[in-house]
Amino acid sequence: MTPQFSSTFNFQAWSEERLAQVAQSLKHGIDVHAPAHLGEAMRYAALDGGKRLRPLLVLAAAEAVGVDLEAATVSDQPSALAALNAACAVELIHAYSLVHDDMPCMDNDVLRRGKPTVHVKYGEAQALLAGDALQALAFEFLTPQDGSTDLAVQATQVGLLSRASGYQGMAGGQAIDLASVGLPLTEIQLRQMHRLKTGALLLCSVQLGAVSAGRPSSMVFDALTNYAEALGLAFQVVDDILDVISDSATLGKTAGKDAAADKPTYVALMGLAQAQQLAQQLYAESLSALAASGLSTTATAALRALASQVVERKN
Amino acid sequence: MTPQFSSTFNFQAWSEERLAQVAQSLKHGIDVHAPAHLGEAMRYAALDGGKRLRPLLVLAAAEAVGVDLEAATVSDQPSALAALNAACAVELIHAYSLVHDDMPCMDNDVLRRGKPTVHVKYGEAQALLAGDALQALAFEFLTPQDGSTDLAVQATQVGLLSRASGYQGMAGGQAIDLASVGLPLTEIQLRQMHRLKTGALLLCSVQLGAVSAGRPSSMVFDALTNYAEALGLAFQVVDDILDVISDSATLGKTAGKDAAADKPTYVALMGLAQAQQLAQQLYAESLSALAASGLSTTATAALRALASQVVERKN
Repeated sequence: MTPQFSSTFNFQAWSEERLAQVAQSLKHGIDVHAPAHLGEAMRYAALDGGKRLRPLLVLAAAEAVGVDLEAATVSDQPSALAALNAACAVELIHAYSLVHDDMPCMDNDVLRRGKPTVHVKYGEAQALLAGDALQALAFEFLTPQDGSTDLAVQATQVGLLSRASGYQGMAGGQAIDLASVGLPLTEIQLRQMHRLKTGALLLCSVQLGAVSAGRPSSMVFDALTNYAEALGLAFQVVDDILDVISDSATLGKTAGKDAAADKPTYVALMGLAQAQQLAQQLYAESLSALAASGLSTTATAALRALASQVVERKN
Repeated sequence: MTPQFSSTFNFQAWSEERLAQVAQSLKHGIDVHAPAHLGEAMRYAALDGGKRLRPLLVLAAAEAVGVDLEAATVSDQPSALAALNAACAVELIHAYSLVHDDMPCMDNDVLRRGKPTVHVKYGEAQALLAGDALQALAFEFLTPQDGSTDLAVQATQVGLLSRASGYQGMAGGQAIDLASVGLPLTEIQLRQMHRLKTGALLLCSVQLGAVSAGRPSSMVFDALTNYAEALGLAFQVVDDILDVISDSATLGKTAGKDAAADKPTYVALMGLAQAQQLAQQLYAESLSALAASGLSTTATAALRALASQVVERKN
């Protein structure tokens, strides 16, 4: 299958503009004057780092259902603000999970995105609190107190994000991951773990964008859900591939770490060539899902480009 | 000031019935089958323990504004369910904060409510995850997906709880606490720390109940806020007093811990007699606030009884 990009869509320009909007909102929303350097640690964890795939998925999905995110007018439109707030919220959840994951009692990582991890820089206790406060802040972002977004949309987004983050989602997946080190998992078990650990938040990102102007039709919602599920799994398969074929400098984190830690991976399970084939197949599935949404190819251009990024990425 | 309890109000019976409702909802909402023993650790942290002051404040405030919490009809009334869900949500936030507080990098406590702490029983990594998942679950409780509560109330409650939990509230207070060990604080600084660390969640409990049937008049909301602020501070002053005058068996946790850890306390700041006087003064303030609410003494009976419990408690 050949991706049919709209000839007028410029992913680079689009993502730069959207990421600037997200960065500005995040910066505005994390009070550097928060007590006792907590704000500093939170900013260190959440600002200027990473690929920001999740917020881009939120915004691309919002645009797919017709939300106008033009920077000049975004603050006048409840649906655009709801999408932007949700983009920040998923990034905050992602950021908190990395802070806690890196702690000595979990992965004990000292380097993240080329910088010392939060607990190395601010101490373990502050890292624990910063992660906790980042999670709370995600829900603050979804519920602005100034009447700028619709209350029903706020409630819907909180319902989605809390479930994707908690025991039915990310935290549950991490618990399975913890328990499965050194165990030979089947492909079904591996899929289940990743569906929760990374898939739930990626899926939620797309859904948060899709509901930012209210509930779309079930045809659209279900198609976007299918897109996100294929993309989420592809993301993890590619992660496992990169852990094997890339070096630490390109990855920005320690390469070969999963294999060294005896963690179950797709490459370990099916071999490199098969894993690469699976990634391509999931990419094709994500595009088919979009084609089935009934949305125009112009509307879904950013979502298609993001799927391509996920499988083509080098880190 | 002599408290004017309604002659027909039986606090013991009221609190037992309300706590049974909370316990049932919590039990129902924490899936013991959550992946890899995460549900077990969450239940261990959140079920059958503690005084449950926060959920009782939510429910007492809800009843003060006219919400009917009779067990037989609660499931048919959106406002009663919103109050009950909020009661569970604050308890989950409180429970997660205890799990994380007890971890080795924070207070390194091995005993809580007479049982081994979560990280002692399940390991540090699982304790970290369980705390994270309990926080997310609080927001799941506030946003039921079955249409049983009003979406605007859901959004309002999430807005209140997320702010009370995060850097502007509990987590911010904990950061100040961490930074202030061994430092001589002024009474203003000590009040500020406790206003965030414990006061914010106690205040939020009352406010969550107060909005469970929609926003009450500002006269009522402001009066309940004043009540809760006085009660929150009284709670901390009494905590400091008990740390000095009680023994570990009565407290259910290590007595004399704050003094040993060189933590700033009201007793250290002003002496025992003055601290006891301050507690009584704050109790009187909480009752005056209720009297100024315009609500009937019958409606506020449970709130008055809870204020009395806070200053009279032995643990």
